Amino acid sequence: MGKCSCHPEIESSYICMKHNVYLCEECLKCRDPELFCKFRSSCPVWFMDKKMKGLDEEKTAEEQICKVFFEPDNKEAEIAKGASLLDAAQKADVHINASCNGKGSCGKCKLVLISGNVRKEDTALLSDNEKEKSYVLACQTFVQGDVRVKIPDETIEKKLKVAGMGKEVTDRLKGLVSDIQPMLKEISLELEPPTLDDPVSDLDRLHRGLKKTGCDVTRMNVGLKVMRELARAMRDENWKVNVSVIRKKCSNEILSVVPGNVRLPSLGLAIDVGTTSVVVYLVDMEDGSVISAASGHNRQAACGDDVINRIICAEKNGVAKLSKMALATINNLISETLSAADADFKQIKNVVISGNTTMAHLLLKIEPDYIRREPYIPTVSEFPILKAGEIGIKANPYAAVFIMPGPAGYVGGDIVSGLIYAGFHREEALTLFIDVGTNGEIVLGSKDWLMTASCSAGPAFEGGGVRWGMRAEDGAIEKVSIDPETFHPRISVVGDAKPRGICGSGMIDLISEMLVKGIIDPNGKFRPDMSHPRMKKDHDEIAYILAFADETAMEEDIVFTETDIHSLILSKGAVYAGFTVLLNQAGLDFSMLEKVIITGGFGQFLDIEKAITIGLLPDIDRHKFSYLGNSSAAGAYMALLSDEYRREAGKISNSMTYIDFSGSSRFMDEFTSALFLPHTNIENFPSVKIR
Amino acid sequence: MGKCSCHPEIESSYICMKHNVYLCEECLKCRDPELFCKFRSSCPVWFMDKKMKGLDEEKTAEEQICKVFFEPDNKEAEIAKGASLLDAAQKADVHINASCNGKGSCGKCKLVLISGNVRKEDTALLSDNEKEKSYVLACQTFVQGDVRVKIPDETIEKKLKVAGMGKEVTDRLKGLVSDIQPMLKEISLELEPPTLDDPVSDLDRLHRGLKKTGCDVTRMNVGLKVMRELARAMRDENWKVNVSVIRKKCSNEILSVVPGNVRLPSLGLAIDVGTTSVVVYLVDMEDGSVISAASGHNRQAACGDDVINRIICAEKNGVAKLSKMALATINNLISETLSAADADFKQIKNVVISGNTTMAHLLLKIEPDYIRREPYIPTVSEFPILKAGEIGIKANPYAAVFIMPGPAGYVGGDIVSGLIYAGFHREEALTLFIDVGTNGEIVLGSKDWLMTASCSAGPAFEGGGVRWGMRAEDGAIEKVSIDPETFHPRISVVGDAKPRGICGSGMIDLISEMLVKGIIDPNGKFRPDMSHPRMKKDHDEIAYILAFADETAMEEDIVFTETDIHSLILSKGAVYAGFTVLLNQAGLDFSMLEKVIITGGFGQFLDIEKAITIGLLPDIDRHKFSYLGNSSAAGAYMALLSDEYRREAGKISNSMTYIDFSGSSRFMDEFTSALFLPHTNIENFPSVKIR
Repeated sequence: MGKCSCHPEIESSYICMKHNVYLCEECLKCRDPELFCKFRSSCPVWFMDKKMKGLDEEKTAEEQICKVFFEPDNKEAEIAKGASLLDAAQKADVHINASCNGKGSCGKCKLVLISGNVRKEDTALLSDNEKEKSYVLACQTFVQGDVRVKIPDETIEKKLKVAGMGKEVTDRLKGLVSDIQPMLKEISLELEPPTLDDPVSDLDRLHRGLKKTGCDVTRMNVGLKVMRELARAMRDENWKVNVSVIRKKCSNEILSVVPGNVRLPSLGLAIDVGTTSVVVYLVDMEDGSVISAASGHNRQAACGDDVINRIICAEKNGVAKLSKMALATINNLISETLSAADADFKQIKNVVISGNTTMAHLLLKIEPDYIRREPYIPTVSEFPILKAGEIGIKANPYAAVFIMPGPAGYVGGDIVSGLIYAGFHREEALTLFIDVGTNGEIVLGSKDWLMTASCSAGPAFEGGGVRWGMRAEDGAIEKVSIDPETFHPRISVVGDAKPRGICGSGMIDLISEMLVKGIIDPNGKFRPDMSHPRMKKDHDEIAYILAFADETAMEEDIVFTETDIHSLILSKGAVYAGFTVLLNQAGLDFSMLEKVIITGGFGQFLDIEKAITIGLLPDIDRHKFSYLGNSSAAGAYMALLSDEYRREAGKISNSMTYIDFSGSSRFMDEFTSALFLPHTNIENFPSVKIR
Repeated sequence: MGKCSCHPEIESSYICMKHNVYLCEECLKCRDPELFCKFRSSCPVWFMDKKMKGLDEEKTAEEQICKVFFEPDNKEAEIAKGASLLDAAQKADVHINASCNGKGSCGKCKLVLISGNVRKEDTALLSDNEKEKSYVLACQTFVQGDVRVKIPDETIEKKLKVAGMGKEVTDRLKGLVSDIQPMLKEISLELEPPTLDDPVSDLDRLHRGLKKTGCDVTRMNVGLKVMRELARAMRDENWKVNVSVIRKKCSNEILSVVPGNVRLPSLGLAIDVGTTSVVVYLVDMEDGSVISAASGHNRQAACGDDVINRIICAEKNGVAKLSKMALATINNLISETLSAADADFKQIKNVVISGNTTMAHLLLKIEPDYIRREPYIPTVSEFPILKAGEIGIKANPYAAVFIMPGPAGYVGGDIVSGLIYAGFHREEALTLFIDVGTNGEIVLGSKDWLMTASCSAGPAFEGGGVRWGMRAEDGAIEKVSIDPETFHPRISVVGDAKPRGICGSGMIDLISEMLVKGIIDPNGKFRPDMSHPRMKKDHDEIAYILAFADETAMEEDIVFTETDIHSLILSKGAVYAGFTVLLNQAGLDFSMLEKVIITGGFGQFLDIEKAITIGLLPDIDRHKFSYLGNSSAAGAYMALLSDEYRREAGKISNSMTYIDFSGSSRFMDEFTSALFLPHTNIENFPSVKIR
């Protein structure tokens, strides 16, 4: 809580994470331009902050060391007395979720205290039942001596259900690139041995051999290591060698020369580093088939759900820590794909990484500080081709790594990658591309022009800031329909497990159903006249019970509150306002759109009809919509195999016009108009019928 | 000693260092082609090997550790019992000469034993007087317990007198390059700060700034380190930065970006790494002036005088050891030049290194094994631009290092460098370029064509294999004339010191004078009828006393023996045969030569007339001759400042036709004909009048 920047007499729980400024609820809805002028930076989107405590808290001076032991991982950390269990978990490399980066507002970092002395901050995010079972929030529990804790089942990360990971989809990828042109090429040569009449140096002889295969040797670099090993490598197998050559934008380089000309298949990696989840495809570079795939949660989640929290964390703890977390996630997934394929990491010679600008900076240990400060400048938009070894990626140390370029601090390589896959930048049709995540990115255009913008949509669609919100993993309610008579829900759960929470697609379904069935009103408030066994008071709020305790994995009611609904409305409002203003800037309106492509972390399915009902998507011809799975990973796959797509990525990134909304009152107007279900101007949604 | 490969019944002391094959004296002079066919490789030049002992001797199994203490350096080494004092000296980093690489044949590694138990091999290379004073040869003395030794004055290396080091000469260098184009350019920029309307990434902003100064940013690379420091560097001094950009053959690279736009003068180094001596020029990159210069002995001399011994040493002890020795030499000299100029090593941003092919390989830790084995192949002829940090040179770690390219295993970058300086590859005149050193390199041609060859001239001209031979350092007799009546010599000594030995130019003078004054005959033998106070028996040989004990620094007679004369004759014969055959291969003869350029390690002066008299140079119009000082260092200086000369170096190296003499009977014929003073065919030397 903090004082509203506009009305200092009002304590507010809405905070702009970008500017660390509070704004009261009145202000949030107010459309008076006079009032908005009072803000130093007029950031459009504000998040609920239940407790900012701890964010800038100074460390305890007293440095008594305590041991914290984690079951069932059997990991231990030594940490200063007074530190939180979350700090201890991070130090012990125990991976638990902490969506709000330790602010005590998300309630995700649950642990069970087995023994030891701790000081606990009181929290409303644990039920009495949980408290009885010794549940604590890791970030709100401070060690006072040696402590033993257990990570409960619901805190242990489950396998992600990533759209686009099925065999069918990976098979479809294979056809996307016909002419495979890896960055790092392996060339087998059989050279003529030197004689007195042909006494050229070993390197010149190698160049001559490469030239015969069509290599451009005039622009060829070579490093000391290769030179040092060259004489032996060339002679060991009687002038038969395998040469690895990297093709770069402006020069080529010989990366290795090894004796013999028998070699293992060359593999490649297409990696999507999302703020939330990471996807790895292991690809056969000969035929482009996806040999195996794996996905998991970005371990950086321990530092918060969104990029702003990650940047703050990097500023406080050093960028190396965040890089290490991302690398640990990526490298574990690579190991998984390798063991599934029975392959060795040294076979991996080509890597493409797609991620938003902050993810790319953090991975490479480039401080992202200025991305979150006006005017939101990234250090690098277009990265040179790097080597896996210098980044720390588990691949052959000299494997070529291409990082997808991104045009702006808040529109990154993941969006460019998505465009490569969606391909509308090659077509005539006017297309709207929407990637809904914690950061909502929007691209509008066709083959002639591209405009892009981003808006802080908040983590709601990915489970953040929602009482029982979770990602699309086992136990997530992904589909909901409500009986109009009994108001009882029918739910589908990922993995056919007992429900543990609700993911993005489930929330869209739920809100749409509650709106259409008259359980909530267009303000997102429960109708006061409702009385039903599914309604209950939860922490002083009215809530709808999605699943009763006896049906759920944790034996707790899974509920959806007005606060939860409000989080969703803020998110969908930001996205809707985003593309509305972008269209407007281009002098267009919805009727002119020929295609709308949606991608994001909702889950495997997205019900377009219901997304329109809640006002996330515009009310236009349903045939224009398509929902892509993980477009970022698919685009990375395409760039992995194709020189043309890699060059195209650079072109897209350079040609996009980025529109910044942070100073736009037009955006603010559209945003506040969109904070209703489906919208303040119901005439924009003629096909939505609500009770 | 070993059995002659041709006449196994004869024990011979002539060994081919390249092939490790013995050849008796008869064979050496024999011109019968039948006989020469018997040799596996018909290497043209053979050296006297007094003792090969120890070269391949196995290490003592018993590994008792002994301490060896060196005065006056106060350095100590722990070494296994049975190891030689030379091993101990190398381990203790005590620098003493060992021309023959520990074979006990040069007698240069003298030490004085103070205390301790040692086992000594008997040696004829120490006088009775020296033995009385407890002198030992380090390589022939094996520790049996803790030992204390003193390095006598004559063993401590003196300052080299390097031709071309005077102020006058370095001043002359300054005019050689008019348009200074360093590899690494420093550019000061003042950038526009970013705004919401101009939100390009930091790197793009930097590129934009560089582009305005005319940089080709489309081919610009940048490394992770620079990217990681970029955001802060750009903001620390309010968007003023100094950028270091390297211009390479095929791409450019941003090497560093530092805040501010005040900077220290940029410095460069031109380094000549000779087998014997190393020269360093510290250059102001703004105006090309040589700020300071230093020269010293290549510490690799502890592993032998010539490249073959260095290669053998690298094979036995690892190339890293030899690299370390060269780097220690170079870095000490750099420190000297820096302290003379009161500058910091970080100011050094450009380096050019010139050296023969073996020196370049050893310095870069590239194993040179195949250079000494038929067909004599170097690993690399043309090196990419490297960074000082990766080589280990004391300069800014990212300083650009250009290594002079060399066309063959025995014609290296030092010759290309010499050509750059001599410049005849740009002229019409048919020119012969002769670099006399342990390896004699010869280049013939003009701007239209260049032919090159090398011959093993032996170390005699640089003081090796000669009883009192030494380099052109303080105490070296550099000029000699002999009174025709009294036969007494008149000598000039480097540094006006008491004589300690005789250097190359002194030996040429001496032999010429002895020949002309009738002391020796054309076979290099003392005339049997000579009787004179200057003649004496020395180690069972007749010798001419150049300086009596009471005139010399070591209180020993400085003598010149028949063996010494023979070493010189072998050397001059190889050089003469070399250029004769090369001319012949080109279908030319001496009369067609328009210019003859001589360079090498003789000393500061070379008396052309006397060099002709002994048959080192051809008997043609004296006006055609010129003696260049250190042409290799001068060429390195020119390449340091000029992009054009760097490119020219590559072109020269690639365009030279290398002629290999190792299988040439024609060369053998010419060589044996040249083993007389001045020559077997005296009609080739009409102007030489001998008694």
